[in-house]
Amino acid sequence: MGESKEFLAENVQRFGAVYSPQGPFLLDSGLSLSSVDIAYTTHGELNRDGSNAILVCHALTGNAHAANAILPNGETMHGWFNGVIGRGKALDTDKYFVICSNVLGSCYGSTGPTSIDPATGRRYQSRFPQVTVRDMVRAQKLLLEHLGVCRLVTVIGGSLGGMQVLEWGVMYPDFVQSIVPIATSARHSAWCIGISETQRLAIVSDPAWLGGEYAEQPARGLAIARSIAMIWYRSRVSFEERFGRSEIRDGDGHERNRLFAEQPEAFSVESYLRYQGQKLVDRFDANTYILLTRVMDLHDLGAGRGTLKEVLGSISALSLSIGISSDVLYPADEQKEIARLIPRSSYVELASPFGHDAFLIAFDAMNAILQQFLGTLPRVPAA
Amino acid sequence: MGESKEFLAENVQRFGAVYSPQGPFLLDSGLSLSSVDIAYTTHGELNRDGSNAILVCHALTGNAHAANAILPNGETMHGWFNGVIGRGKALDTDKYFVICSNVLGSCYGSTGPTSIDPATGRRYQSRFPQVTVRDMVRAQKLLLEHLGVCRLVTVIGGSLGGMQVLEWGVMYPDFVQSIVPIATSARHSAWCIGISETQRLAIVSDPAWLGGEYAEQPARGLAIARSIAMIWYRSRVSFEERFGRSEIRDGDGHERNRLFAEQPEAFSVESYLRYQGQKLVDRFDANTYILLTRVMDLHDLGAGRGTLKEVLGSISALSLSIGISSDVLYPADEQKEIARLIPRSSYVELASPFGHDAFLIAFDAMNAILQQFLGTLPRVPAA
Repeated sequence: MGESKEFLAENVQRFGAVYSPQGPFLLDSGLSLSSVDIAYTTHGELNRDGSNAILVCHALTGNAHAANAILPNGETMHGWFNGVIGRGKALDTDKYFVICSNVLGSCYGSTGPTSIDPATGRRYQSRFPQVTVRDMVRAQKLLLEHLGVCRLVTVIGGSLGGMQVLEWGVMYPDFVQSIVPIATSARHSAWCIGISETQRLAIVSDPAWLGGEYAEQPARGLAIARSIAMIWYRSRVSFEERFGRSEIRDGDGHERNRLFAEQPEAFSVESYLRYQGQKLVDRFDANTYILLTRVMDLHDLGAGRGTLKEVLGSISALSLSIGISSDVLYPADEQKEIARLIPRSSYVELASPFGHDAFLIAFDAMNAILQQFLGTLPRVPAA
Repeated sequence: MGESKEFLAENVQRFGAVYSPQGPFLLDSGLSLSSVDIAYTTHGELNRDGSNAILVCHALTGNAHAANAILPNGETMHGWFNGVIGRGKALDTDKYFVICSNVLGSCYGSTGPTSIDPATGRRYQSRFPQVTVRDMVRAQKLLLEHLGVCRLVTVIGGSLGGMQVLEWGVMYPDFVQSIVPIATSARHSAWCIGISETQRLAIVSDPAWLGGEYAEQPARGLAIARSIAMIWYRSRVSFEERFGRSEIRDGDGHERNRLFAEQPEAFSVESYLRYQGQKLVDRFDANTYILLTRVMDLHDLGAGRGTLKEVLGSISALSLSIGISSDVLYPADEQKEIARLIPRSSYVELASPFGHDAFLIAFDAMNAILQQFLGTLPRVPAA
């Protein structure tokens, strides 16, 4: 994978422990993977009866490092959900055993397109089979059993993470005391599928894509995909406050983005989007991006089960659905609808100008919301 | 321009009459064009004192054909604003002289990147100088004088059209009795600049772009740009109602889009976006797309004049600001703010699920709103 090789090798080392369940892993599609790795991290201690665990599910380009971690070299690895994980925070590691695993199909230590296919000795790349949210959840369940978890206090996650949360509620009702889906879909909307599609088209139109059999990343395509997505992850108000019409000028110490150096730029927001694109290229794989956006598009809680009303109506866990007031991707109305259809669900709206990403930014509000919810859960003795 | 040559040659013939003012045309930038063509159409009759004219301003990929027109071959050319133009409609051609001109810099008969540069005998392509909304409005003013118009009853337009409308209010206060800006910006937001930028990056990353010196359109890049934009032009609700999760299947008479034939597609919304992209490639030029998105990004009513409050506050014309309830690109709040800052402005909200494009779709509501507004205008004798 050329320049990617390095970060991917590092990922396996850096991104937590790895659990490799015995035997082949059967997928929703009917295909199977002859072996799978599941990279994960844990924080806190599992209690004797295995009943104090919380599973945190990550979003599209996330990884198992939900909480900060000290690397062997002493460097602190920033955790994407660290704002709510740790002593005194909502997911209090003095109380809870907090687990986060890299989803099946990702490129941070779990088996995915960048892994070696044992059948060929080469990376899967675009030949990695299409996995689903349900496959991801099944892999997480194997991991939890391996760790001795008997029941989850809660499963929490936003976006693709929230899709896993909802599947947990449907697939393993006896294993989850509560679920916290955030800014997500019970069934990916045409709107979101369309947005995914524009990103995939940008990637596959990069001449370096080579049908997914690239040695070097299709960097420009992947960067464009990310810049398209970044706008949807934020909000008009937050962009206006942060950038407005502020201009950049070459020579003011401004360094042109190397991917798009020849294309003039005038405004700070343009420079920001190019930078975000570049950053993703340095840390994420294009085949994986295509695979995981397709996972989200295929997500439909009702598929093969019944209507959404029936399926959400069958969830027995206590639920807290969190919407974000400024989310244009998974709008608050969609979260209200999820709450309305789950029998024992409440709804809370995170009033934030940050858009979809607010659940990764507005940690004070998130802590307050989660502490309140977890405080209402009855102590359940383990089975 | 290879395949583009044909449609562009046709455009000049088809897209209305052409006015070519004498002498060079000085641009905002200080550069000048040695000559300019302005393609336009008119409907209805100008009255004796030249006081019954209405100027219609088009959006990014629009043209001078606001109303339907019968071509020499008998074919009807569909007008993009025909729903409100004609006998008995709001812009009643029995009463008003309705003018629409293709903006300076476009590719439908007015001078732009696809025109021949007299200095070189070759198309301008990416060497066409950056024009501005103010340049467009100055060109329109020359045309109106040429046509004998002494004063406009109103200037109306949405999106880029609305930017021209606002500039009319500022630049020629004595020439406009009223203005109707729709779903637009007084100053392009960081949000909208970012969205433009993702589209430009898609175009310039197409290997066929060749720095703008292409013989064949960078078709995939332009198609991706359009598909990105189409999502923003509509709304989540309208996509959900129209497409939902409906799937396409090869063999069901579904024909793969030729630009992206090798890239699998699963959902109707994907097919729709590819189709929209292809359609734009067949009718619009990539250099022009880059130029005009930059025109919009550079739009700032306050630039060189003062604060927005001062500049909008200086508009003396009666104004009707129209917002669209589901617009995620130029949201209703932005239109309310424009109305608040223009002294003699009212605000109407078009309640529609169609998003930004509603002003081009919801013609019953548009007629009602415009008829009501035009009915309140006092008859003004011409100077």
